[in-house]
Amino acid sequence: MDLNTGPPRAGEKVGERAQMLQGQDATTKHPRIVFTAKARNQSVGDKAKRCLRNKLRILNWIGRYNVEWGINDAIAGITLGLTIIPESIACALLAGLPARYGLCSAFVGPLIYLFFGSIDKVIIGPTSLVALVSVQFTVGKPIEFAFMLTFLSGVVQLIMSSLRMGFIFEFISMPVIKAFSSATAILVIESQIKVLLGIKYLVAGLVESVKTLFLRYGEANTGDLVMGICAIAFLVLFELLEKVADRGKGNRIWKVTCRYLSFSRTTLIVVITAIVSYVWLQSEPQVPYALSRNALSGLPNITLPVFTIETPEKTYSFWDMIAEMNVGIIVIPIIGILTNLSIGKLTPKGMVDTNHELMTLGLCNVFGSCFQSMPTSGAFTRYAISTACGLKSPMANLYSGIIVLLALVFLSPYFNYIPEATLAAILICSIFTLLDFKLPLRLWRESKRDFGVWVICFFVSVLCGVEVGLFVSLIINVAHLLYLWARPEISVKIQEVDDMQYICVTPGNGIYFPAINHLRAKVLKAAMQAEFQIPVVIDCHKVTGLDFTAAQGFVKLAGGLKCEDDEQSGGRSTEALLVLYRLDVSLQKLIDNVDNLVFCESPDKIREFLTQESLRNGFINLKEHIRASIDLGYKIDMEGES
Amino acid sequence: MDLNTGPPRAGEKVGERAQMLQGQDATTKHPRIVFTAKARNQSVGDKAKRCLRNKLRILNWIGRYNVEWGINDAIAGITLGLTIIPESIACALLAGLPARYGLCSAFVGPLIYLFFGSIDKVIIGPTSLVALVSVQFTVGKPIEFAFMLTFLSGVVQLIMSSLRMGFIFEFISMPVIKAFSSATAILVIESQIKVLLGIKYLVAGLVESVKTLFLRYGEANTGDLVMGICAIAFLVLFELLEKVADRGKGNRIWKVTCRYLSFSRTTLIVVITAIVSYVWLQSEPQVPYALSRNALSGLPNITLPVFTIETPEKTYSFWDMIAEMNVGIIVIPIIGILTNLSIGKLTPKGMVDTNHELMTLGLCNVFGSCFQSMPTSGAFTRYAISTACGLKSPMANLYSGIIVLLALVFLSPYFNYIPEATLAAILICSIFTLLDFKLPLRLWRESKRDFGVWVICFFVSVLCGVEVGLFVSLIINVAHLLYLWARPEISVKIQEVDDMQYICVTPGNGIYFPAINHLRAKVLKAAMQAEFQIPVVIDCHKVTGLDFTAAQGFVKLAGGLKCEDDEQSGGRSTEALLVLYRLDVSLQKLIDNVDNLVFCESPDKIREFLTQESLRNGFINLKEHIRASIDLGYKIDMEGES
Repeated sequence: MDLNTGPPRAGEKVGERAQMLQGQDATTKHPRIVFTAKARNQSVGDKAKRCLRNKLRILNWIGRYNVEWGINDAIAGITLGLTIIPESIACALLAGLPARYGLCSAFVGPLIYLFFGSIDKVIIGPTSLVALVSVQFTVGKPIEFAFMLTFLSGVVQLIMSSLRMGFIFEFISMPVIKAFSSATAILVIESQIKVLLGIKYLVAGLVESVKTLFLRYGEANTGDLVMGICAIAFLVLFELLEKVADRGKGNRIWKVTCRYLSFSRTTLIVVITAIVSYVWLQSEPQVPYALSRNALSGLPNITLPVFTIETPEKTYSFWDMIAEMNVGIIVIPIIGILTNLSIGKLTPKGMVDTNHELMTLGLCNVFGSCFQSMPTSGAFTRYAISTACGLKSPMANLYSGIIVLLALVFLSPYFNYIPEATLAAILICSIFTLLDFKLPLRLWRESKRDFGVWVICFFVSVLCGVEVGLFVSLIINVAHLLYLWARPEISVKIQEVDDMQYICVTPGNGIYFPAINHLRAKVLKAAMQAEFQIPVVIDCHKVTGLDFTAAQGFVKLAGGLKCEDDEQSGGRSTEALLVLYRLDVSLQKLIDNVDNLVFCESPDKIREFLTQESLRNGFINLKEHIRASIDLGYKIDMEGES
Repeated sequence: MDLNTGPPRAGEKVGERAQMLQGQDATTKHPRIVFTAKARNQSVGDKAKRCLRNKLRILNWIGRYNVEWGINDAIAGITLGLTIIPESIACALLAGLPARYGLCSAFVGPLIYLFFGSIDKVIIGPTSLVALVSVQFTVGKPIEFAFMLTFLSGVVQLIMSSLRMGFIFEFISMPVIKAFSSATAILVIESQIKVLLGIKYLVAGLVESVKTLFLRYGEANTGDLVMGICAIAFLVLFELLEKVADRGKGNRIWKVTCRYLSFSRTTLIVVITAIVSYVWLQSEPQVPYALSRNALSGLPNITLPVFTIETPEKTYSFWDMIAEMNVGIIVIPIIGILTNLSIGKLTPKGMVDTNHELMTLGLCNVFGSCFQSMPTSGAFTRYAISTACGLKSPMANLYSGIIVLLALVFLSPYFNYIPEATLAAILICSIFTLLDFKLPLRLWRESKRDFGVWVICFFVSVLCGVEVGLFVSLIINVAHLLYLWARPEISVKIQEVDDMQYICVTPGNGIYFPAINHLRAKVLKAAMQAEFQIPVVIDCHKVTGLDFTAAQGFVKLAGGLKCEDDEQSGGRSTEALLVLYRLDVSLQKLIDNVDNLVFCESPDKIREFLTQESLRNGFINLKEHIRASIDLGYKIDMEGES
């Protein structure tokens, strides 16, 4: 093992830190810290209060809320509201729903998250990721299916929360999440290219879609393409404006203006292109590009989700709907919560209470479904904006919700003037940030296994759908973790103490039942090579756990440490001693008492055992025997000594 | 930790072994052992030979075969053959097949196992366990389904072998196997009680069966009951005969006679009761108990398995059959191989090459299906007999197979005289040995978790079927292994070096992605209690692995080790130092370089870091500072020193 890599780096640090403290005065005292146990005799009231605070997270920060926070949150909230409007409409179209249902999804969720939400920078609303996946399960079905999916997603999230199943999400590793979101980005971009080209079709799967796109390339419409490219150019330019504002040395007002122009770029492009359409339609009967349609005005109806849907062709019962949506009712809630968790991990604290977040998102979806909402969650694009705006608390959800509600009431008729290509451009630009191909390069250098998982997750997601990719990579990760229990690192080498050899076996992990046969095989092979002549020492200092099967395995191993043909070997036993060194005492009692198995805690004790074995086998002579016996404290009569 | 439990026990051993060597002469030299690497430059011929030896296991022992082994094997083989005949017939009836198909199953398998088999004491044939499970998948269907199931089981076993999937069986722990076999014993005994009572019905599930039994108790037939009880009494008495022979002080011939009478007790009772039936039928037109019927004479036809079955009601295609047999084509091969593996673990060597055993059993089943065999495997009852008979090699399979073949040719007509109650008695007595209720008691004392798994596996197997029980307990075991990765043991305590405190965190296992959030939460909680004033040392000596997500988690942890409101804290940073102590150098490179994260290999280095931190925070005074600096080897100008 090369030990040189570590210390120099550590050494560097020493110098650095040492320099910082030159000349510093020493006045403060050493702080004394003792961990305090929690007070056990809490009153019932205290408990209830804590429980309430734990659920209604608003109570944790509303008391500290001040004017400064309020101003920050209002600015961020309004900016977010203006961004969320075009984004929601785009997501609704992506999910195959009329534009207004996007907005319906973007005001109930934020208001609920305001009270329960634990992650500051999550703004609930529709996301292109969820929209893209949910369209698979609702395409070609009555519109009520989408709201039903929202309702069922919420119910599933609430059930997972109440069963404390949040730990499941810990089995999704970072490379998987990254590969998954890059794959989504690819899929969303691909799905929007046809909108940019003004070609209309609906096929499932990336491969089929690309094939259709190439076949129908001739149908591309110049109007849509020009509009889309202009919108993308506008969005990219205005995105750069923020960087210009950060770097430039102009005065403060110029900087703030630049920044807010940049933040509200999606709203701006939507307003500009809608005005263009409106003006155009005053003189011409048609615009040369597609407009988003079916936007009805007014507030959404408050209804319970419909449990029976009647269409001219078929009547769907509740169970029919569940059967039709299939794995969708599991996949959608999981994808939704994954986004929130990923955002939570990006925040400075980086810790998320998964079960609480599941509950909150579940409530957002269940209540959302009463207002004709599509499945919702936080979104990375909104996280980026809220970070840039210096958002302080979930209060921004309130402002954002109000803006969306106002838009829904007063602006709905004007949604009909928004070109579809503009919305496609918005989706493409917002999802572009999720594309991350630096990570796989880094993984390739640092961890080939993680790279493999990334590659599999990415390509399976792109080719077979994100839910399949997620599932496959979850299985791979779990299989690897199980493999580590089945084939732990075990080092076997010959060591010597006082000229006496022994086989030293060091398992790297706890030894549970899947590993015990592997360990036995390794030890037996080594012992057989040594013809069962020298003792075997298993160094268990890394072993933190043992189950019954493994304990029995150790006993069997001790039994197996002898020459098989011992009947022919002429009476002398060639049974090797098995020493379990540094095994936790609580685990020792699991192991039966057998003749050639001993426990031992110190290297001295090992030497003792080795000496005895050598004596027993006659490998060391009488003098050494006596010396060893004296060392062991046995009384032996010897001439010349009293 | 109580260290007293270990050493005294070890001490005991010392005394014991030391006594053994008193007065022994020391003449032998210390043996010197060096592990030899495998010779790499083997010829192609050598490789082929080794490969052949690895597949055709007969080559490993046939060269050493001698007359002594031959005699032992012949005696054991003939005894086994005589035992296997009635057992096979009973199993055939249990599987809902005519008697002769039991015998058809008991001669091809042994002959193949003779060449390929790696476990000496496995005798292939039908078993009550496999019969009991397979009847679920073939009941009420044409007889060809049973042979098809055999064929498909073999194919599945061959596929698993070629994909090296044997490691899967390492995830079945010993308590699961024991609970599973006890549950089978209960189910087989319950299924035979109705035969003993002479009541005929066919219902699925233990609960339903017991209910039906109680409802139809009145139909019980005295003739069957008397015959059954007599048979059981005979079998129990003759089983005791073996123990009498072992303990008694009579002459050798008496002992041997007793032993062989005991071994052939199943054959004896079958012959006796068949003769009784034969004699009875000479005078009366009917016997007062049920006889096994449909036994046709002659050798089985050699045919390929039928891939299309036509019945008056329906024509089954190959895929129809697979669909009808459902999970049976997975469950049956797994149960079969499990029995062989369990027997293998009971042998002195205790190591089984699972993939080779899968291949062998697969061949036995595929070839068996051409001779109208039901699914086969080794059996515990036959293992017990072969151990008692002193079987030496798989050669006994040859003798056993010949005996079965002879019985099939010459004795088939007489099978019609065997009472069903006798066969039920044989099954009950043979399966009784599998009932083991001592183990759960022991598990309750030693490992509550293993006890829980036993209980769940046992009751689910009894109530919902053995395949469900096996699956559920496999899931529980796997979930526990995964849980160990998600929530490893992590000890957090405050330690002191030279009056300087630090938080010492020791993870018990490798830290992979599922555990990293748990670790971070634990460390952050402790650091927050200490107000980020004292450094955190993570002792990674038990950490053998790290993945990318976990490495990133360490970096994030370092970033999180500071007071959140640091803007308000007046400029002075309260960032705590994170020391990764004894982390494997190969894993260090996965972790990014951050300001407050350092690596360290020795306790001295920790002291250095702590001193620097104390200086930086101003917790120790200038004098100590200088002393520390001198210790660190920095050059500092001081008065009175040169």
